[in-house]
Amino acid sequence: MELLNKHRCFGGEQRFYKHDSTTIGLPMRFSVFVPEQAAQGPLPGLFYLAGLTCTEETFVTKGGAQQYAAEHGLILIAPDTSPRGAGVPGEADSWDFGVGAGFYLDATEAAWAKHYRMESYITDELFDLVTRELGVDAARVGVFGHSMGGHGALTLALRHPEKFRSVSAFAPIAAPSKCPWGEKAFTGYLGADRSSWAAHDASALMADKSSAPFPAGILVDQGLDDKFLKDGQLLPEAFEAACSKAGQPLTLRRQAGYDHGYYFISTFMADHVAFHAKQLA
Amino acid sequence: MELLNKHRCFGGEQRFYKHDSTTIGLPMRFSVFVPEQAAQGPLPGLFYLAGLTCTEETFVTKGGAQQYAAEHGLILIAPDTSPRGAGVPGEADSWDFGVGAGFYLDATEAAWAKHYRMESYITDELFDLVTRELGVDAARVGVFGHSMGGHGALTLALRHPEKFRSVSAFAPIAAPSKCPWGEKAFTGYLGADRSSWAAHDASALMADKSSAPFPAGILVDQGLDDKFLKDGQLLPEAFEAACSKAGQPLTLRRQAGYDHGYYFISTFMADHVAFHAKQLA
Repeated sequence: MELLNKHRCFGGEQRFYKHDSTTIGLPMRFSVFVPEQAAQGPLPGLFYLAGLTCTEETFVTKGGAQQYAAEHGLILIAPDTSPRGAGVPGEADSWDFGVGAGFYLDATEAAWAKHYRMESYITDELFDLVTRELGVDAARVGVFGHSMGGHGALTLALRHPEKFRSVSAFAPIAAPSKCPWGEKAFTGYLGADRSSWAAHDASALMADKSSAPFPAGILVDQGLDDKFLKDGQLLPEAFEAACSKAGQPLTLRRQAGYDHGYYFISTFMADHVAFHAKQLA
Repeated sequence: MELLNKHRCFGGEQRFYKHDSTTIGLPMRFSVFVPEQAAQGPLPGLFYLAGLTCTEETFVTKGGAQQYAAEHGLILIAPDTSPRGAGVPGEADSWDFGVGAGFYLDATEAAWAKHYRMESYITDELFDLVTRELGVDAARVGVFGHSMGGHGALTLALRHPEKFRSVSAFAPIAAPSKCPWGEKAFTGYLGADRSSWAAHDASALMADKSSAPFPAGILVDQGLDDKFLKDGQLLPEAFEAACSKAGQPLTLRRQAGYDHGYYFISTFMADHVAFHAKQLA
């Protein structure tokens, strides 16, 4: 693990790391914000999963979360959004598939299966790394994210509830099996057989539960002037219906006038960090 | 004035504009954050001047100021850092001179004098535009900035105290006549005769005052792990001495561990916006 650079920020440190990932089989970058409270011992950790085209830096420069993490004493971890340099033919041809668009799953299609393993990378390798090396308390970890990363947060939390104690999302791709982004990505990574898709679809996963997997609730913010909401890429109503069916408490806030970007995300960042901090206390 | 795009943010609107500047003789872009209180009438305005290589977008995405402007009811205005497309030979050859490096002055050297007129652009044309069209109260305007923009904030406030009622800076180039960045820029824009430089040097301007131009004080934050401080580009001690000589109250905060970037700036943004809001109330 190589520390690429660090910057003092809100009394703590914003760090950027690079490491040779055994899961991905390539070097991977991630960022970590460590508040000053870390000097007193392990702290809760909160993973942020970013959206299409983003990197480990996007959230760090535009999200404005450090001040709240400093206030609550949380460590923030932001991985990259895909492997880089895997060399899969065509991997950089689309902005919504391949490079910058790993969709937080382990691909099963032959061309992608070797390197595109973001689910195992985050939930096993990176999770272990930050708990072992960077002072994150493994028993107090939450996850949130935006758009593709909102999909990632919801699905990884539902698939690994023993690892993630709290989950929230900004404008998540909430039912990827039923939207163009998800259909393209799942076809590419998982194959054309749709029976394999439900295991990576937050609404399908939730609809399958017989009781609330997160009894303390799930928080989702969705802007109503979000172009991708209007285009049918996000489908929060599908997740809402699934939570209702499963008895999962959901706070889905429809925010009038807000779009899909970080001006929206930063506006509600304080609420999300506080939501996680309360559950991870 | 063309509205390029707008984004709802902290209850207000983050807007990006383009207009044909008569002062610059070229199209110019600027950004404005308008909080929701603007619906009730004119509000104080706060200009932010960015540093070398930045644009009208840098502060908006990385500064994290909108939440505080929303809280205090201030309009934030961020101009670009130079003309774009002037076509002066060599204008894009350096990152610290020419494009992205207008130094907030009106050039007098022949090659630059036609378009590189950032002082008149900001203090006359843009000032008038935002007060006439965007609800800024002309009697309650402040200015702050970073690095080259900290130089801009201090010098424009000292040269136009009738327009700017409050001033602060992050890691300003505080004595440009005595540092490599300033010497290069002033030689290029103003000529080799150093007698013309003092009028655009915050420390020289301040040292010339017989009483405090800003009796309510000036706020400057400076990171102590700032590479450019160590390189002698910033020279806050020269400005400190000049303020002392003039009887100007100065709060110069030397912040241990902080560097020159937006992780530093965003950490202390709340204090700066509150500082201006109090004086512009």
